[in-house]
Amino acid sequence: MTEPLTLSIDAMGGDNAPDMVIEGIEASLAHLSKVKFLLFGDRAKLEPLLEKHPKAAAVSEIRHTDEAITNEQKVSTALRAGRNSSMRLAIDAVHSGEAAGVISAGNTGALMAMAKFVLKTLPGIDRPAIAGYYPTLQGESVMLDLGANVDCDADNLVQFAVMGEVFARNVLGIENPSIGILNVGAENLKGNEAVKKASALLQETTLPIKFHGFIEGDDIGRGVVDVVVTDGFTGNIALKTAEGTAKMFGEFLKQALTGSLISKLGALMARSALKKFKMRVDPRLYNGAMFLGLNGICIKSHGGTDAYGFSKAIHVAEEMISHSFNEVIKEDYAQLSGHSREMKEAVVGE
Amino acid sequence: MTEPLTLSIDAMGGDNAPDMVIEGIEASLAHLSKVKFLLFGDRAKLEPLLEKHPKAAAVSEIRHTDEAITNEQKVSTALRAGRNSSMRLAIDAVHSGEAAGVISAGNTGALMAMAKFVLKTLPGIDRPAIAGYYPTLQGESVMLDLGANVDCDADNLVQFAVMGEVFARNVLGIENPSIGILNVGAENLKGNEAVKKASALLQETTLPIKFHGFIEGDDIGRGVVDVVVTDGFTGNIALKTAEGTAKMFGEFLKQALTGSLISKLGALMARSALKKFKMRVDPRLYNGAMFLGLNGICIKSHGGTDAYGFSKAIHVAEEMISHSFNEVIKEDYAQLSGHSREMKEAVVGE
Repeated sequence: MTEPLTLSIDAMGGDNAPDMVIEGIEASLAHLSKVKFLLFGDRAKLEPLLEKHPKAAAVSEIRHTDEAITNEQKVSTALRAGRNSSMRLAIDAVHSGEAAGVISAGNTGALMAMAKFVLKTLPGIDRPAIAGYYPTLQGESVMLDLGANVDCDADNLVQFAVMGEVFARNVLGIENPSIGILNVGAENLKGNEAVKKASALLQETTLPIKFHGFIEGDDIGRGVVDVVVTDGFTGNIALKTAEGTAKMFGEFLKQALTGSLISKLGALMARSALKKFKMRVDPRLYNGAMFLGLNGICIKSHGGTDAYGFSKAIHVAEEMISHSFNEVIKEDYAQLSGHSREMKEAVVGE
Repeated sequence: MTEPLTLSIDAMGGDNAPDMVIEGIEASLAHLSKVKFLLFGDRAKLEPLLEKHPKAAAVSEIRHTDEAITNEQKVSTALRAGRNSSMRLAIDAVHSGEAAGVISAGNTGALMAMAKFVLKTLPGIDRPAIAGYYPTLQGESVMLDLGANVDCDADNLVQFAVMGEVFARNVLGIENPSIGILNVGAENLKGNEAVKKASALLQETTLPIKFHGFIEGDDIGRGVVDVVVTDGFTGNIALKTAEGTAKMFGEFLKQALTGSLISKLGALMARSALKKFKMRVDPRLYNGAMFLGLNGICIKSHGGTDAYGFSKAIHVAEEMISHSFNEVIKEDYAQLSGHSREMKEAVVGE
């Protein structure tokens, strides 16, 4: 009998925590077996919830702490004063090796700072990035950075490209994933210095990477590339703009379909199709942002998600661990960054 | 009898030019009267088209030129060698006072560079910006910059805020429009240096401007503010990402509704509602990006648009002219930038 996979959970993180966390664990068990959860949080709140969810209770162990990081808390305060917080202790469990990965729906900035401080970055990575799935007409893509780094230089973008490539190949199982850099135009001359230099580096490279070149905003949804590389400022805004557009569309569609009796009847007839449509664009499906480039698996769930969304974030962690993402990325990255250095010297030397 | 409004048209700009240009003029006449068009382009191509569109012909005058700017042309080449191009001559007509505004569906970079070179910027404006309408749950917002300036500092963003405010107040008729700066979070501590400094300047200001603060990507579609201020890199990518998301949604919806006989029947019953929905999110409705900050009205139509879209761009020009946008902005801006200087000195002096 193999050892169960152990995941550590910041049970107090998220707008609807801890209720949705425990319900999310219960929901995840429909698809996961041989898993064990370390729940960091307030025992007095967690115990009554576990009593109501016996399946979750059977695979969970509470690690009590009174302290929790709030959404309003500054990153610096969280780092300094949050050593006994549920978030920090959940990360510590990954560092000590007790858990294979951590999931939190709490304060993104604090989670990234603590994870970076405790777990450290992988060799060759200057800055970790937040990566996420993005639905496209072709299936799904990976996009990074989604907000960890508001200012990025060309080297950061090249590192994101390499991490994204390894992720798409190993976790998504895409044989030769294509990489694109998000820009304001497809031509080489367009864009700011960082994207132009990163593109030059990736074009000249002998890296075994399929670099597509620049893509524009509307190419993301078209699924033109498997991996979308961008700085955290642009990536965060692009992703949230897409979410906002999706919500607006849903609302406009609802308003149109409930506008008259006949349209209501039509919508009723087409309800299974509309439900299928709704499921396909359900943001909860894409919940669970991956912190890439750290010495440990760390997944950020959307703060406002529900149990279904949280269960998806658990699955993302499980997927990365079962594909040995961090072991593979260490090997691949060592190899790729050797190439990358050579190639950079070649470009700079020109 | 009042003088007709004269608009100059780059008849050779755009993927489907000159056909869609002439058809667009014809379509615009359903809503415009007392208008006259100066058509810059190839007479041999334009004359047969005008014969087929007698209404357009009656209000158009061809100004022949063989030369046109292509989409592939570099901005520097267009500026240097494009003096007799249809685009350049159409802009010249605004500069000479013969036309009140120019519309082109050609190369965006070349149009902006030529318009800036020929028309010059308004006093106090370092860089013109591209502004566009954005549909929201509340109606519509104005967003700028959409791609004229890939790198922006805090002063540029403050100038965009002021121009956007004047636009929303005078052209959209919003009494006290609210302004937001696009960022990765709503808190003051978030974001890059440019947005943080611009926000500080606008917060401290005695300007009669309703500054909302930072907004996030999903606040755009929600209609949280009337004017969305951002740098051209982020703005271009956010807008195109929204367009791409809209297209993806439309495609998913179509696939769902044509998936079975019963859903097809339902869609048929709801067809007038679905048509209304489609019309509400039709990107052609929002065609016509405004170049703000120039000594003259210059409108950029989407390169791939059709006649309906081009007619909308003509309307945008007509609207800006009939609201005396450039006269008002000159007055308002002089007043506001006086405030702005004072306030900047105050902040810098701290």
